Amino acid sequence: MRAKMADYSPVRGSMVIMPYGYAIWEKIQEVLGKMIKDAGVKNAYFPLLIPLSFLQKEAEHIEGFAPEVAIVTHAGDKELEEKLVIRPTSETIIYSKFADWIQSYRDLPLKINQWCNVVRWEKRTTPFLRTSEFLWQEGHTAHATKQEAEEEVMQILNIYGDFIEEHLAMYGVKGYKTESEKFAGADYTTTIEALMRDGKALQSGTSHLLSQSFVKSFDVKFLDKDGKEQYVWTTSWAVSTRIIGGLIMMHGDDKGLVLPPKIAPVQAIIVPIYKSENQAEVMEFVAKVEKQLAIAGVRFETDNTDNSPGYKFADAELRGIPVRLEVGPKDAADNSVMAVKRVDGTKSAIKVDTLVDELPALLETIQAQMLARAKQFTQDNTNSVSSYDDFKQVAESKIGFIEAYFCGDTALEKQIQEETKYTSRCVPLETFAKEGKCFMTGAPGKLTLFAKAY
Amino acid sequence: MRAKMADYSPVRGSMVIMPYGYAIWEKIQEVLGKMIKDAGVKNAYFPLLIPLSFLQKEAEHIEGFAPEVAIVTHAGDKELEEKLVIRPTSETIIYSKFADWIQSYRDLPLKINQWCNVVRWEKRTTPFLRTSEFLWQEGHTAHATKQEAEEEVMQILNIYGDFIEEHLAMYGVKGYKTESEKFAGADYTTTIEALMRDGKALQSGTSHLLSQSFVKSFDVKFLDKDGKEQYVWTTSWAVSTRIIGGLIMMHGDDKGLVLPPKIAPVQAIIVPIYKSENQAEVMEFVAKVEKQLAIAGVRFETDNTDNSPGYKFADAELRGIPVRLEVGPKDAADNSVMAVKRVDGTKSAIKVDTLVDELPALLETIQAQMLARAKQFTQDNTNSVSSYDDFKQVAESKIGFIEAYFCGDTALEKQIQEETKYTSRCVPLETFAKEGKCFMTGAPGKLTLFAKAY
Repeated sequence: MRAKMADYSPVRGSMVIMPYGYAIWEKIQEVLGKMIKDAGVKNAYFPLLIPLSFLQKEAEHIEGFAPEVAIVTHAGDKELEEKLVIRPTSETIIYSKFADWIQSYRDLPLKINQWCNVVRWEKRTTPFLRTSEFLWQEGHTAHATKQEAEEEVMQILNIYGDFIEEHLAMYGVKGYKTESEKFAGADYTTTIEALMRDGKALQSGTSHLLSQSFVKSFDVKFLDKDGKEQYVWTTSWAVSTRIIGGLIMMHGDDKGLVLPPKIAPVQAIIVPIYKSENQAEVMEFVAKVEKQLAIAGVRFETDNTDNSPGYKFADAELRGIPVRLEVGPKDAADNSVMAVKRVDGTKSAIKVDTLVDELPALLETIQAQMLARAKQFTQDNTNSVSSYDDFKQVAESKIGFIEAYFCGDTALEKQIQEETKYTSRCVPLETFAKEGKCFMTGAPGKLTLFAKAY
Repeated sequence: MRAKMADYSPVRGSMVIMPYGYAIWEKIQEVLGKMIKDAGVKNAYFPLLIPLSFLQKEAEHIEGFAPEVAIVTHAGDKELEEKLVIRPTSETIIYSKFADWIQSYRDLPLKINQWCNVVRWEKRTTPFLRTSEFLWQEGHTAHATKQEAEEEVMQILNIYGDFIEEHLAMYGVKGYKTESEKFAGADYTTTIEALMRDGKALQSGTSHLLSQSFVKSFDVKFLDKDGKEQYVWTTSWAVSTRIIGGLIMMHGDDKGLVLPPKIAPVQAIIVPIYKSENQAEVMEFVAKVEKQLAIAGVRFETDNTDNSPGYKFADAELRGIPVRLEVGPKDAADNSVMAVKRVDGTKSAIKVDTLVDELPALLETIQAQMLARAKQFTQDNTNSVSSYDDFKQVAESKIGFIEAYFCGDTALEKQIQEETKYTSRCVPLETFAKEGKCFMTGAPGKLTLFAKAY
């Protein structure tokens, strides 16, 4: 709020995304949007309002979303004949069109994405992390074979993984969701789970193989090469404005945001420091610095307000600007600026005529440093246990992930959640082949990550 | 529909924007979005759902929008305490935040824009031109003085004008709306009215000076330089997906779309023409052509389907691709391609080694030609009248704009509409200073354009 990323709204559970926060979303749209297009997916737009009967066609789907949907009963001064829901996700309406658009194997694969708003009525909300309305991209693809669809699920999960690591400097663990945590209507759900600095996990992108009952409900069939009628296999996948919450909670500190340079709307801020007798020379030098930053293609601002340097430093820290460039009379005389890294406060003088190379290099260093720090934090806060007693003890005394072999039983998961507030976050892909004795039952289990979750 | 720009949706009055149509919207967002940002406006995002009571705070506003709003009465399995409307436009919710964000003259001007969806429950709908849900950008600015706000209104109207002329090759007339056609809650509304090829007018961008009753309802005040409390002056302005309807209806012909090169998702399509005995040499040459187009930065496709050349030509025409490049064995032997302009069907051979220069030049020629044609069409279909008898005769026998001095009386406008289906479209800026005798009353009037409207 103080960094002007977001503000509360008069509507319960909704928020206003302010320009500084929205600039981050636009950067995400630009970068992730290109990655998605490069994967052969085309953008489109489907209606906001979906007939309630569509959601009801898939049993698990409506069961999962019924408690969360907002319902339109009146429009244009009249009561509607059929109730409409504001999309909580768009599988149903998109599949109703896929049924029209897909006739033969030649129409496959069909890969569609939309950037839009969705509404899920949440009981407890927190700006970015959980809001009744949020923005997202939702991808929906249809394929001729299950194998192709499964490859798509993984391709997208990897795109998400590359995106959050490379651009958001976030570290996340890729894995499968357990039965009780999967998407309502999915065969299975893959996810990236990222550990925030308060020790809670945030789902940072999901990619689902949808259950065939969906396409059967909407009759999405095609003629295969042998002229045989078959149902398509579908996937869906999404990243939402929640990821901005992740960005805040994974990197931020008590002084405010810490933004990774690649996604930061402002990568460097110049803070001129002068008294009236040397203002002219300092500002002349600032102009030189600005020119070099423009040449370097760095997104920068100069803080020309009347505030004190101390206030300006604090404000730049609050906004998480990766590099602060202090320019005082001594710096000007020395033809250099003092670069201060937001992530760790370290300082280094940079000569103005090397800024074009050195500042971009410094930003790259910071980007790598932030990712390494996030990864280290996750490793440092992952504890293995092999008994429920150990589990409970760790849950009480530590934060972060608890790693244990688990049989995946839904009732047990519920018990664990009730007793410890920990839920299964994912069964990591990396160790998926391994089996061990379930910490609850002793039966065969997969290595599973648990955590408190947002 | 046949060009796969849009499809009907299962929800009455909504449409699906298909990838080919959405690509145009993305291009509009890219180009117009940059123009808006360059004017010092920042993007943000405000909630979809607005308390009904907010709309009711401004009397004219609720009167104008009440018959069109969709109302959410239930959410999260419960009846809501206060009904929410899906935004038909966002003045009210934005002003409720402006009241928080604006304290002193230092916070002004405040210029915000959002790209989003809105819902207005329409009785009769047509894809793109009038749909219950549409996408748009809505800009909202607050200023210290009326003069500044009025300058903003005009600056944006000029941006819209430049945008539609330069990028969409659309010709429109800028002017003021009469009392009966202005935005519900505006002091006055400016508009760009463009004549479609069927003779109907389409509102192609509007920019409003809002009435002060709005800011008074939401208590948007600031302390001026003298420490005196004052209400701000506000503007709002929008361009929507309707403009894509305009693009279709202004340029299209019986063969399909005709897209201006600057906004066309595909600017050139290569159609290889061969028999089995010369396929190899033609395709080798096509590869050379593709390389040149890539170097030239032209957005192109090659039609590699099994369809006949005739089918491919018709398909390219349907989709309105500005230039078709036919490549047959004779062309390959001659090291040239046959370029066919969609707009008029004229052909010219271009040597492959001059494509890098000549194709972009050809696209520019087409862009200019389309704008000139649109302007000419508007001039050719604007008829001046000085009596209501003349008016009625022209209305019956001709299409397009009718130009007449008019006193602006709301009751008379209603009568004209009932008797002729013509409504006032705008009082053009260019001739705003002129006065003449009203064609209905003989009283002093302004030169006013009438037309049937979408």
